[in-house]
Amino acid sequence: MRRLIHQPLDPFCRKVRLALAEKKLAFELEVEKPWDRREEFLALNPAGTVPVLVEQDGAIFSGHRAITEYLDEFYRDPDGGLVLLPGNPIERAEARRIADWFDEKFAEEVTRTLVDEKILKRFLPRDLGGGPPDTETVRIGMHNVSYHLDYISFLVERRNWLAGEEMTLADLTAAAHLSAVDYLGNVPWSDFPQSKDWYARIKSRPSFRALLADNVPGMPAARHYANLDF
Amino acid sequence: MRRLIHQPLDPFCRKVRLALAEKKLAFELEVEKPWDRREEFLALNPAGTVPVLVEQDGAIFSGHRAITEYLDEFYRDPDGGLVLLPGNPIERAEARRIADWFDEKFAEEVTRTLVDEKILKRFLPRDLGGGPPDTETVRIGMHNVSYHLDYISFLVERRNWLAGEEMTLADLTAAAHLSAVDYLGNVPWSDFPQSKDWYARIKSRPSFRALLADNVPGMPAARHYANLDF
Repeated sequence: MRRLIHQPLDPFCRKVRLALAEKKLAFELEVEKPWDRREEFLALNPAGTVPVLVEQDGAIFSGHRAITEYLDEFYRDPDGGLVLLPGNPIERAEARRIADWFDEKFAEEVTRTLVDEKILKRFLPRDLGGGPPDTETVRIGMHNVSYHLDYISFLVERRNWLAGEEMTLADLTAAAHLSAVDYLGNVPWSDFPQSKDWYARIKSRPSFRALLADNVPGMPAARHYANLDF
Repeated sequence: MRRLIHQPLDPFCRKVRLALAEKKLAFELEVEKPWDRREEFLALNPAGTVPVLVEQDGAIFSGHRAITEYLDEFYRDPDGGLVLLPGNPIERAEARRIADWFDEKFAEEVTRTLVDEKILKRFLPRDLGGGPPDTETVRIGMHNVSYHLDYISFLVERRNWLAGEEMTLADLTAAAHLSAVDYLGNVPWSDFPQSKDWYARIKSRPSFRALLADNVPGMPAARHYANLDF
């Protein structure tokens, strides 16, 4: 069976889980704590990061970008599965630009300051930066998330999906990143009705169900996290 | 004429310059200081980052990954130009994994601590983090670079180029990142003969010449920077 080695609330892992599910590819999840730096894990991925995908034949793929590009190239015509990067090279560049917006800018400005601060720091040993969340850092993250919701609204006012008329990797990536913040209940959806409508469309897809069932021990999801009518 | 908006020592811009030159695509360079956050520039790329590629027909591409993937898809068969991601989907995944190693891990562990500390901070206003380099941060960067040279040596002991038997985007990416550190004279080449041999092969390519001619006012390149016999 295909295996995805992951961390449940890691947005990069969530993106790959969505991509696999949209491609209708079956897989088992295996949780890894990258900060433990286990030798067996480093042998799979010397960068020491999740996600890592292990195919049925044993082939190993590391890094969320290399994995999603591989999935889209290798499983180009699965029965009814989503093409992650459809269209011509110019349309694909737009989808990749927006995916990177979330993988880099949102990750730095929101995930690091909110999700890492509130969740990751609970699990990290103190010498690796663990400890209680820093209130000022969390406040900055809460402020930054609105800026990104504003950008999503700007895009979906002009297009059906973030990168154009079809759903792409850009939507899965943005939704994966937002979903981790939404688990914490820190997305001010009511202030951004267009972003909320876009997220509701993705959230109701079958590929999203497994993400909505995630549960971090000792830190239950926000009340509306799994609710399709949020 | 095709335009690349860039910063001379930015490794992500250097990667795109190498990719364009390897594709034998003519382009003009235009320097932008992203930290000025000029409105005209933000209209081209709302993320506010370089590189930005403006094609002859006015089409705009932002983000080094979106640009290199676009170039490789759109200019797949230019006369004698390099295919950046050759091979099958599995081989391409390996090239993308290694490119991301340098774009993320090296950028965080070396570029941020050495290049940004020694060069970028000279140009940034003080309220954006400008100032003299922090000695301890630079020391960490100097330490980290050896770890990455060791990984390059590990790879080229087993393969002709970083991702396999052919030169790929992985090599251009790694060389682009190393070249900025080399400008500072902070790459301990003599300790890593295999890495040095690999870098010498890339450094002698015509695509590299423009990078070797770069000059930061007030901060001349290290003595051996432009020397092919370094």
